[in-house]
Amino acid sequence: MVSRYVYGKMIETESVLNKPEKTEGVLPYFKVNETEMTFSYDMGEKDKVYGLGENVRGINKRGWIYESKCSDQMNHHEDTRALYAGHNFFVVSGRELFGIYIDYPGILTFDVGYTCYSEFKITASDWNLDVYVITGSDIRDIVKQFRRLIGRSYIAPLWGFGYGQCRWSYMTADEVREVARRHRELDIPLDSVYLDIDYMERYKDFTINEETFPDFEKFVEEMKEQHIHLVPIIDAGVKQEEGYSVYEEGLEKGYFCTREDGTPFVGAVWPGKALFPDMLNPEARDWFGNQYRFLLDKGIEGFWNDMNEPAVFYTEESLEAAIEEISGMRGQNLDLDKFWHFKDLVQRLSGNENDYTKFYHNMNGEKIRHDRVHNLYGYNMTRAAHDAFERLEPEKRILMYSRSSFIGMHRYGGLWQGDNKAWWSHLLMNLKMMPSLNMCGFLFTGADIGGFGTDSTEDLVMRWLELGIYTPLMRNHAAMGTRKHEVYQFENTEGFRHVIRMRYRLIPYIYSEYMKAVLNDDMMFRPLAFDYPEDELASEVEDQLMVGDGMMIAPVYTQNATGRCVYFPEKMKLVRFTKEGEQQEEIISAGYHYIHIGLTDVVFFIRPDHLIPLSSGGQYMDEVDFENLSFVSYLIHGAKYEYYHDNGYEKDYENPDHIRVIELEA
Amino acid sequence: MVSRYVYGKMIETESVLNKPEKTEGVLPYFKVNETEMTFSYDMGEKDKVYGLGENVRGINKRGWIYESKCSDQMNHHEDTRALYAGHNFFVVSGRELFGIYIDYPGILTFDVGYTCYSEFKITASDWNLDVYVITGSDIRDIVKQFRRLIGRSYIAPLWGFGYGQCRWSYMTADEVREVARRHRELDIPLDSVYLDIDYMERYKDFTINEETFPDFEKFVEEMKEQHIHLVPIIDAGVKQEEGYSVYEEGLEKGYFCTREDGTPFVGAVWPGKALFPDMLNPEARDWFGNQYRFLLDKGIEGFWNDMNEPAVFYTEESLEAAIEEISGMRGQNLDLDKFWHFKDLVQRLSGNENDYTKFYHNMNGEKIRHDRVHNLYGYNMTRAAHDAFERLEPEKRILMYSRSSFIGMHRYGGLWQGDNKAWWSHLLMNLKMMPSLNMCGFLFTGADIGGFGTDSTEDLVMRWLELGIYTPLMRNHAAMGTRKHEVYQFENTEGFRHVIRMRYRLIPYIYSEYMKAVLNDDMMFRPLAFDYPEDELASEVEDQLMVGDGMMIAPVYTQNATGRCVYFPEKMKLVRFTKEGEQQEEIISAGYHYIHIGLTDVVFFIRPDHLIPLSSGGQYMDEVDFENLSFVSYLIHGAKYEYYHDNGYEKDYENPDHIRVIELEA
Repeated sequence: MVSRYVYGKMIETESVLNKPEKTEGVLPYFKVNETEMTFSYDMGEKDKVYGLGENVRGINKRGWIYESKCSDQMNHHEDTRALYAGHNFFVVSGRELFGIYIDYPGILTFDVGYTCYSEFKITASDWNLDVYVITGSDIRDIVKQFRRLIGRSYIAPLWGFGYGQCRWSYMTADEVREVARRHRELDIPLDSVYLDIDYMERYKDFTINEETFPDFEKFVEEMKEQHIHLVPIIDAGVKQEEGYSVYEEGLEKGYFCTREDGTPFVGAVWPGKALFPDMLNPEARDWFGNQYRFLLDKGIEGFWNDMNEPAVFYTEESLEAAIEEISGMRGQNLDLDKFWHFKDLVQRLSGNENDYTKFYHNMNGEKIRHDRVHNLYGYNMTRAAHDAFERLEPEKRILMYSRSSFIGMHRYGGLWQGDNKAWWSHLLMNLKMMPSLNMCGFLFTGADIGGFGTDSTEDLVMRWLELGIYTPLMRNHAAMGTRKHEVYQFENTEGFRHVIRMRYRLIPYIYSEYMKAVLNDDMMFRPLAFDYPEDELASEVEDQLMVGDGMMIAPVYTQNATGRCVYFPEKMKLVRFTKEGEQQEEIISAGYHYIHIGLTDVVFFIRPDHLIPLSSGGQYMDEVDFENLSFVSYLIHGAKYEYYHDNGYEKDYENPDHIRVIELEA
Repeated sequence: MVSRYVYGKMIETESVLNKPEKTEGVLPYFKVNETEMTFSYDMGEKDKVYGLGENVRGINKRGWIYESKCSDQMNHHEDTRALYAGHNFFVVSGRELFGIYIDYPGILTFDVGYTCYSEFKITASDWNLDVYVITGSDIRDIVKQFRRLIGRSYIAPLWGFGYGQCRWSYMTADEVREVARRHRELDIPLDSVYLDIDYMERYKDFTINEETFPDFEKFVEEMKEQHIHLVPIIDAGVKQEEGYSVYEEGLEKGYFCTREDGTPFVGAVWPGKALFPDMLNPEARDWFGNQYRFLLDKGIEGFWNDMNEPAVFYTEESLEAAIEEISGMRGQNLDLDKFWHFKDLVQRLSGNENDYTKFYHNMNGEKIRHDRVHNLYGYNMTRAAHDAFERLEPEKRILMYSRSSFIGMHRYGGLWQGDNKAWWSHLLMNLKMMPSLNMCGFLFTGADIGGFGTDSTEDLVMRWLELGIYTPLMRNHAAMGTRKHEVYQFENTEGFRHVIRMRYRLIPYIYSEYMKAVLNDDMMFRPLAFDYPEDELASEVEDQLMVGDGMMIAPVYTQNATGRCVYFPEKMKLVRFTKEGEQQEEIISAGYHYIHIGLTDVVFFIRPDHLIPLSSGGQYMDEVDFENLSFVSYLIHGAKYEYYHDNGYEKDYENPDHIRVIELEA
């Protein structure tokens, strides 16, 4: 049951596709305080709160305060309140069971028992919002109802499920060739190599650096012959440079965000001064989307949208003011207060909230200040791309995922979990974020494997891959200045080959479960609590997940461990694939058990009367045989599996021929 | 067996008290490369490396690269290479078993399988060092031999084991009174309140802000009447201010570190420009130590030494150069490279290595550049205090602990684990650091409970206290600008009272085990691996510890969990103290078990035929009755416990009357 409660007059987000009629009367569950613009819920001692999409901390979000405020946030710390997204959907489970979606484009705060352990308090920054209350038979049912409201999730092309390698940046075509060559030579599967910001000419969107990537179209083709897709990055900011056609055309047509006086708003990002396409203006959005043609025409079939919170490093006047004040400090004796202030002058330049009050959008003729609709920007950048792909390449699935997002964007692309670090705790965060994102419609997702922002280690990359083989997006990525961690940089080639190959062996299951989750508005990754709602121990498990229909995973996320404790809510079968090619199986009884998981072991668990289809693998997705399958199964009475398979590129998703039922008898 | 290998001519650190004769011949285990100034060890697959004292990451240090480079490092991240200390002792356990201590006052790097998983490589910054190789029957034996080399650890007064409350800062005497009053009113035990930098007059060491702390001596007395000790902070840097006696006297006598030309070196810290007492000059050290008299005379009996890496925020010329360059950026279009550089100009000012090459020490007449002896500074500041206490208050135990440290300092004071954050992962880090510090002689230690640098939550403070009740130093602390987390700020008073009271009930055991560890050169906190060397599962446990003779602890360190998996290397007895006053006991068989540990439960485990003495508690340490004990025990055949107790203030530690044997029959 979905009810919609209306407060003030919301700026339309278009996140909900089919709005139910407005419900009159008092909002259930939450106390409303219009003056303070808050909603408060009195939590029971055992109440748990799930959802809120892309955020730090637990699967159960209780005990912290989160903000929906899309932020270019490189610190995914335990005390970080906002990452890149505005995902305002959650489910409360305990004394009562209900889901809430707050449809609102501005900043929201969710104090989930942080200030006071028993109070869940939501604060809006203005009082124009719709609140959806969803009740259902269980959490998964509530999620499905929500997902039906917001529409079908984005579907990636099959190759997008392959292993991808990225670095900020492969600086030349030859460096990219080297990445491809090393993987192929070592028989390590690979489907894509990513191009970070340096493939462009001085960070200008929809340009190619002709010196370092000469004859780009041919290069794309050359890579495709090796079954490797190049995936370029697109940034939100457009460089301010005379003679640069995107800049000039956008300026001429008035497609950039403006200051109050109508002049273009200039903020700095990678290229220095840049303008921001007005993604909330449908015309400007169409125009920006059409720019992707530049790369589509060169054979590119996938993109990642970045810096679209939007990130603003500084504005001319904020930088000027900071420099002015710093210059005045010459010769001063800076004590604690003054020195802190001096450092703040610089540290607070980037992502400064004040900058978001300096520019405006043209939303269907209405001039709206950016901060009121801040969370819609990245969403609509990705929508711009998606809509253009539908126009320009209607037959094709194009890979598309974004850093910033809002619910609604899940229809247009996936997301990667942003600029994490090479920390073991971020491996675990990757796991925890999967179900929260699935709840909000983001099924095509994964984190930067090995960790983006700091130096990684061989064992961390290995262990992270052992989670990454299950996530729809499986990309290894690292930042400039950090240690290189393409798997061939390390010694244990045999181990890496084995683990990554397992992705290609498991892909019939992963893809089938992904597609079913999309088509049924379901979650592919679920906390144990969702599948075993009566089991109190299961409800506290935060480091294992149910993956699809019949599988449970429990990755190792501590260094130097060769095993871990795993909770089995019921009897299951352990399956272990070793790098020596052995497949070991063992029945594990319900309860907690220590499970040995060697550094290169791929281990998962099968529920009773379930099966997992496996292929024989491949060097790239198109080499995988999805027809001649083998199975691992745990049969007591027998298993029946709904196997979804299409060709991975066409769009006739609903074609019933794509589903066949596989039955195994005990 | 201890052997000493000599390379070049070490600058004396005085960390080793009784040096064995130099050993001739080839260093065992490690390959020496004099040209590269490295030592390399080929690690077996299962080799583990323990030690290195104060550092991030695991109890087993394998898989990361650490630096002995005392740093004012507020980021205790997984990728942090150096904290505040230089603790160059470790034990390798696996194919071979040995301990190594590198006696060296400069920067050392320990690459423990980071660059290459199988290689342990140590790099020195110059080639003048002594290497001690220690072999023994087991890890604990090796540690004991090492500890005998470096001398007996510091012993705190009994009240120093009480619960302490700190904040940066309680700004006035009335704020301190309020802290005391709230604890006493709520029956929450308390032994000390800490004074952070704001008790001083504009951050000047050995001054009191007379406006905010009028009649300080009387105030100290007033607090003592409530059995509460005030513990002021002392910083390394001495404010440059005419008329300030410490500055003027030190300058006149030439006791500050100088530049190459002999003029005083000026760096900035809290008060702005400051000079650094030459802690490596014995005369200057005596002089600085004598300054503590100012506070001793006012009735103060404990101190914490801070900023003694030494922290240097900036120097006049580095700040000037940065401001100069920033001023020149006016009107420029800063793209990626330039903007990053702009930010770096500010970020790299503090703790800049270059500053450590700008000043010199006078070590017994020899002029030594600071970077060569960097790691000795905090050590010798604490030694200055300790030696002065011995001169000025020879009969008294004075509480003393430090942020920066080096092996050798363990004789003069304890350490707190520095500026951590209110992160659950830092609760676990606190636990992991305990045995590594014990190995290096630091027994009086603990971390800032609740977390220093970010906003904490009620449940985190509660869970952290449940570890803190075992650590010799038990202090709640928080930084300026963060949420207040004195326990009375939260709702669950009954829970906090119960948990903190358990410290006072457990203190007969904690103090006895602490004293025995000091007197026997033993470790009070040990990884399971040390006590159960044959048990492979035990060897990987990184979130439980053995505490003293008969106890194992397994704190909860994840939010919203009401229990956790615990590994039992042998059958043990679980003891649970609930806030309702119940004492529950249960025998748990060997192996992994899930143990329920409610938010306010104090749970520990007793080994077979061991006992734990308990007092009936107290509001402060002097109220605890150490004679009329009760016992929790796990008796199969019977237990025999060596109970150490002295009056907690006198220094006749070795008096045999302090030990009595308690026997319980089954």
